Amino acid sequence: MNIDMIRAAANRLKGHARRTPLLSSPFLDELAGRRLFVKTECLQHTGSFKFRGGWSAVSALDPDTRVRGVIAFSSGNHAQGVAHAATLHGVPSVIVMPSDAPKLKIDNTRALGAEVVLYDRAIEDRDKIGTRLAKERGLTLIKPFDEPQVIAGQGTCGLEIAEQAGEQGIDKADVLVNCGGGGLTSGIALALEADAPGLRARPCEPEEFDDTTRSLATGQIVSNTRLSGSICDAIITPAPGELTFPIMARLCGPGIVVSEDEALRAMAQAFLRLKIVLEPGGAVSLAAALFHADQIDGDAVIVVATGGNVDPDMFRRALDTLPG
Amino acid sequence: MNIDMIRAAANRLKGHARRTPLLSSPFLDELAGRRLFVKTECLQHTGSFKFRGGWSAVSALDPDTRVRGVIAFSSGNHAQGVAHAATLHGVPSVIVMPSDAPKLKIDNTRALGAEVVLYDRAIEDRDKIGTRLAKERGLTLIKPFDEPQVIAGQGTCGLEIAEQAGEQGIDKADVLVNCGGGGLTSGIALALEADAPGLRARPCEPEEFDDTTRSLATGQIVSNTRLSGSICDAIITPAPGELTFPIMARLCGPGIVVSEDEALRAMAQAFLRLKIVLEPGGAVSLAAALFHADQIDGDAVIVVATGGNVDPDMFRRALDTLPG
Repeated sequence: MNIDMIRAAANRLKGHARRTPLLSSPFLDELAGRRLFVKTECLQHTGSFKFRGGWSAVSALDPDTRVRGVIAFSSGNHAQGVAHAATLHGVPSVIVMPSDAPKLKIDNTRALGAEVVLYDRAIEDRDKIGTRLAKERGLTLIKPFDEPQVIAGQGTCGLEIAEQAGEQGIDKADVLVNCGGGGLTSGIALALEADAPGLRARPCEPEEFDDTTRSLATGQIVSNTRLSGSICDAIITPAPGELTFPIMARLCGPGIVVSEDEALRAMAQAFLRLKIVLEPGGAVSLAAALFHADQIDGDAVIVVATGGNVDPDMFRRALDTLPG
Repeated sequence: MNIDMIRAAANRLKGHARRTPLLSSPFLDELAGRRLFVKTECLQHTGSFKFRGGWSAVSALDPDTRVRGVIAFSSGNHAQGVAHAATLHGVPSVIVMPSDAPKLKIDNTRALGAEVVLYDRAIEDRDKIGTRLAKERGLTLIKPFDEPQVIAGQGTCGLEIAEQAGEQGIDKADVLVNCGGGGLTSGIALALEADAPGLRARPCEPEEFDDTTRSLATGQIVSNTRLSGSICDAIITPAPGELTFPIMARLCGPGIVVSEDEALRAMAQAFLRLKIVLEPGGAVSLAAALFHADQIDGDAVIVVATGGNVDPDMFRRALDTLPG
């Protein structure tokens, strides 16, 4: 895993992934107590940065392998990113989803061209189903984060941040990244090391699901005690990955942990001041910048707003945090 | 009023206004029955395209005039665009607003650096107040649309559309523009005439406030019968301007009129599929593309999503149009 793989991924993504804008608002600067810039990956294809990793992985396969198709396990943003990338490559994708996943996400994944295979979480083994299908049909498994070409794809976001920070005259700042398994965080960290060494990636997580923050603090991989029950579902994983953790341990600053209420309030500020839609797990980094400013160094901070796939009901909850 | 003024404005705006992205979604393509692209001016500074015209007008003043400051009448997006542009130029701005304007808008305009002068709509004459202040302090009035440098600033959005359409391989399409007094529509029309003659601007308006559509149909300026009572407040004006109408009459295709309910449903689709926040008046053009496809020609359509300054309550109304 190195910077050359990220640059190669950037070449493959050119003209396919969006170069998402870096937004700001004087109102958010004031709340954050410093200049605040938001990298708007919610505006990426499929509504999250996951399209970068999906495209990178699918495009990196040799054509004979790719034509047989790909498979992924996901009920969320990775599913949509892989499905859309596969369809645009003209190859089949199978997404294995729990049968109790939200209907909208199942419908969307299908509409993006995937074959959705549902399984019953209580009685069926996801991995067994996936392994069988992969073997029968010759599908390639695209893992959500602990996979070099996925990390490389997510790292392209970091190359853009380095460039866009330079355009704003920022050469020293914390870059706050919503962190699940660490694919995006480690990819961005590698890109910044190469192209903007004064910028430092820092993982942001919700309370009670701060596996990466604790792993970085203790120097070894530790796990979350539970795996559900957070509104920040997009960034809940058991533990940082075997590939991603060593990169984060070498390059990242300490993690920042925010409450669910802070994530909702950050969504409301993004609505009000930036006119973008974030999901709770996509707003944790903004919450860290707005409500935990004392843990951040420097005159400027960059926030990666990782996704916007949120149901109307959850968005109403965010709006409810605003006065009036 | 000509293309050279728009190009000069683009030079002045460089590094100050955002080049807003052109977004799309396969889900919206399907709803619209053709490829649909959204120019996201809600992501412009101050949440609407009005910052372009404000910056253009303020930056075009000679320095001795500019230093005395500017004045505008507006309770909405023009107020914020002018206030922010003036503050960034380091010159004072006075915004004359009705005392019953939403508190949030008054607060925001102040926070952007303007001196807000409130007047009572029932008993005071706005123009008289403005004229007196302008005379006393040597302020320059920045009109909202019927002013060449404002039209030139809004036209820079059209230069970007011409460029971005080219990048997408689109050389023939209708460009749907939310239309109040016609500053943006006429500016875009002039820019397209020069840089993308296969693209044609078309004004979009809400029902009962379709002055421009009717003016284009009859070939002469006609007025709306009323001036309030629309949720699309951002694009409600008495009639197209003396400067803007002749340009629109020469260059634009017929207007498209949508219902308020369609505007709300378009806001919901923009939330769901593009992860952007639109106000009702900023979503009329998207509503036209999604719900009046039979009035549109060609395989592709471009929609200018002009603004996103919407209150939480109105946004909830938009979300309420979604199932579940």
